[in-house]
Amino acid sequence: MARIIFLPMDFSALINPKSYAIIGASRNPRSATNRLIVGLLKSGYQGKIFPINPRADEILGVKAYSDIEAVQMPIDYAFLAVPARFAVDEVKKCVRAGVKFLVIFSSGFGEIGNVNLEEEIQRTIRGSKTRILGPNCIGVYSTESKICYFSDQIPEKEGPVTFLSQSGGIMRTFIWTGFTRGFNLRAGISFGNQTDISVQELMEFFLHDSKTRIIAMYLEGVKNGKAFVTTLKKVAAQKPVVILKTGRTKRGEQAVISHTGSISGSNEVFHGLVQQTGAIQVETFEELCDVLTMLSVLEDLQGLSRNVAIVNTGGGFSVELTDIAESFDLNIPEFSQDTRERLKSVLPDVNTITINPLDLGASGFDPRISRQVFEILNDDPNTDVIITVREVERFGYLSKELGVEDVGKMHAAAMRIDGKNRKKIIVIIPKSWETSENFQRYQAFQDMLHQQHLPCFPTPIRAIKTLKMVVGHINLHENRQKK
Amino acid sequence: MARIIFLPMDFSALINPKSYAIIGASRNPRSATNRLIVGLLKSGYQGKIFPINPRADEILGVKAYSDIEAVQMPIDYAFLAVPARFAVDEVKKCVRAGVKFLVIFSSGFGEIGNVNLEEEIQRTIRGSKTRILGPNCIGVYSTESKICYFSDQIPEKEGPVTFLSQSGGIMRTFIWTGFTRGFNLRAGISFGNQTDISVQELMEFFLHDSKTRIIAMYLEGVKNGKAFVTTLKKVAAQKPVVILKTGRTKRGEQAVISHTGSISGSNEVFHGLVQQTGAIQVETFEELCDVLTMLSVLEDLQGLSRNVAIVNTGGGFSVELTDIAESFDLNIPEFSQDTRERLKSVLPDVNTITINPLDLGASGFDPRISRQVFEILNDDPNTDVIITVREVERFGYLSKELGVEDVGKMHAAAMRIDGKNRKKIIVIIPKSWETSENFQRYQAFQDMLHQQHLPCFPTPIRAIKTLKMVVGHINLHENRQKK
Repeated sequence: MARIIFLPMDFSALINPKSYAIIGASRNPRSATNRLIVGLLKSGYQGKIFPINPRADEILGVKAYSDIEAVQMPIDYAFLAVPARFAVDEVKKCVRAGVKFLVIFSSGFGEIGNVNLEEEIQRTIRGSKTRILGPNCIGVYSTESKICYFSDQIPEKEGPVTFLSQSGGIMRTFIWTGFTRGFNLRAGISFGNQTDISVQELMEFFLHDSKTRIIAMYLEGVKNGKAFVTTLKKVAAQKPVVILKTGRTKRGEQAVISHTGSISGSNEVFHGLVQQTGAIQVETFEELCDVLTMLSVLEDLQGLSRNVAIVNTGGGFSVELTDIAESFDLNIPEFSQDTRERLKSVLPDVNTITINPLDLGASGFDPRISRQVFEILNDDPNTDVIITVREVERFGYLSKELGVEDVGKMHAAAMRIDGKNRKKIIVIIPKSWETSENFQRYQAFQDMLHQQHLPCFPTPIRAIKTLKMVVGHINLHENRQKK
Repeated sequence: MARIIFLPMDFSALINPKSYAIIGASRNPRSATNRLIVGLLKSGYQGKIFPINPRADEILGVKAYSDIEAVQMPIDYAFLAVPARFAVDEVKKCVRAGVKFLVIFSSGFGEIGNVNLEEEIQRTIRGSKTRILGPNCIGVYSTESKICYFSDQIPEKEGPVTFLSQSGGIMRTFIWTGFTRGFNLRAGISFGNQTDISVQELMEFFLHDSKTRIIAMYLEGVKNGKAFVTTLKKVAAQKPVVILKTGRTKRGEQAVISHTGSISGSNEVFHGLVQQTGAIQVETFEELCDVLTMLSVLEDLQGLSRNVAIVNTGGGFSVELTDIAESFDLNIPEFSQDTRERLKSVLPDVNTITINPLDLGASGFDPRISRQVFEILNDDPNTDVIITVREVERFGYLSKELGVEDVGKMHAAAMRIDGKNRKKIIVIIPKSWETSENFQRYQAFQDMLHQQHLPCFPTPIRAIKTLKMVVGHINLHENRQKK
């Protein structure tokens, strides 16, 4: 009997196209297509660029063509930016020209009720080798081939995250948030109305993509719920998947329909189904980015658990931190006898408390003391994760007091245990006194810690909620493997 | 029959002392007392400073005294920084010297179980004219008299907020957060263990203080619950009161006992009692600061309600914003027919939606269009509050496109309606791509809007949660007045 082997669609040429055509390329430097070409020229993209414009010989110094069929070379990626009413004609030409992936940027389709127009496009590509992304999308951001929609946001930093986004605007904000929050992208795909290529196909491809360690998604609605959940279950069992789905409320749903033309469906049903797949579902864009910071910054998730040691260092966040840890169901176990005795031997008697939550009092501002504390806690058998607060607002006078240039460096070094960090350390760096000087201290301190694979968050609640979500994800998978 | 008239304690000399003694003043520039004197000298404090140190003739150029009794002048404010075991002797001297307010900085009292020591202090001042703040506190920060505990945080900007804080660390962070978040202080009082002066007495005084428009409190526990709630009810009926109470969970409570020696009590009971008083209770430090930003930045609370117009301007936060508004029970009413027609006349057809939530598409990036939109919405009869998002990350290329130096200025001006803003406008400025350049844009844009009395928040959820809390507070008071 013949066996049918299901091979996932190969999207390599979509993220690493050897040729890139821009249909409707404009000479106007303010237009999206012109800026896109500027971006391709300066990003270091190595493929061929083909501006298509019947009234131009060249655009930005690149030879232009009257028509996609006039190119007479294989086109991996074509970006279509003509008004919706001309789209079908252009799709026909692309099919004839054998374009592999056609990205339809134009809006004015299903999202405003023009469902017929989308159906006509579907009929046009049927049986051809042309696949369509969109319409109503901005296409692909790829740090490998250096293609991008945004001329001011060219792909530089490669990272482990692939982002699949129903909204181009969210993708843009997601990418630039990652630049300074500690996560970077392998690729970003804005898929819009999913008239042809579905998010399921994309998930399936990136599951097998070795450069993608984490898949993140922004969804407004799901077109084929059953297929989506089946694929998600398969993918989330093998790679961490983080999902932000909006359109959760009635009015939000209304906003969704006009934005990408999807029906967002009952959120409760969706959430319940996603829960079972092992994917992490978040409720806000900020949470999405926080989870990606944690997943990206940590080298691995080994040993991550609900058993936290809380290390307070004078200042006011100690009680709030403990409150929040408890209200999010984290454990704050007693330290072992040995840990407590060793802590007592290095800490002053006054204003310190050697139980968990540990209060170092003002002595915690001294990185020489906190280094010893982290070394002791590294050996504690009862706790797996250390959570601590460092206020950069104090770094100025602390540096003066210790006669060093930057006490932040010492505080970062204090969390790098000489042997090996057996504990994950999560650092809360509040952003409170937001002067330029403190901002720079914040960013430098965060970057140092991220390089040491210690994830940073600006508030106790964001750190703890993120930890809880990631630990919940791990536990679900471990329980599955045990079964 | 004789009538007993209850006069609240007069704390004028505590916040505006004519004389300030530092008992245990040190010559060591790293010590707290030495830094405190540095602060008083540079802050512009106009009163007399008396360092007390039996082994010094002068400290930082200020004549020192061997003993508080040796000063032989009336002392309004004495700051006591000697180890707890010497405290009683010093309190006795202060009583003999007729010190008005004695701030006991030292810790090592009830918060570590030394209840007897506190009782002895209470006996020592009984019947005298000396009142004690603390122990285990950092005393007073006053923008009127310019006294402060922190040498690097001298009181400069006067504001409408008085902050009563059980924790000195939280007070420090609160003050510096306000500097850049848009709220400033009339006074901050760190009251520690409340061995004598209670938070009730302080509330009562600031209720009648004309320079205090808003009272904020950080509490870890309440010593006399009944008196506290009675006073709070009276005060909150006349001035907005915002309360952050930690020690809400079992472990948080444990952390509280060791921090300030209070019993934090059942949070549910406390929360229920506070609810009835009309005070606003928040759960995190960030929420505390957000509510104070809104209360401080708005000139008045007139017309603030749950009826919001959501104005989205291309980009990805539109659906999330609508979702969150709905999940926090805000109303998103239909615009009037007139509003919709006027909106249609100024907006392009493509990619815009003229219902509430309003989607301006990319045209919203243009401040000339958004100015017209705000003018139209200013007349809409169905909505009271406008919520909108501006991403400073786009300001660079938008300025270039429009050929202006700073599109932020135009966006801020677009929200200043020529006649009069009849609607409160709340602006979300996400902090996502945190480069130095964007940070400066963020801060400058926020400050411009705050000067126009439009409060800013970095995420949809923080803006909406804050609005909901403040509106809840107003409604409660209005309902009371109707009864």
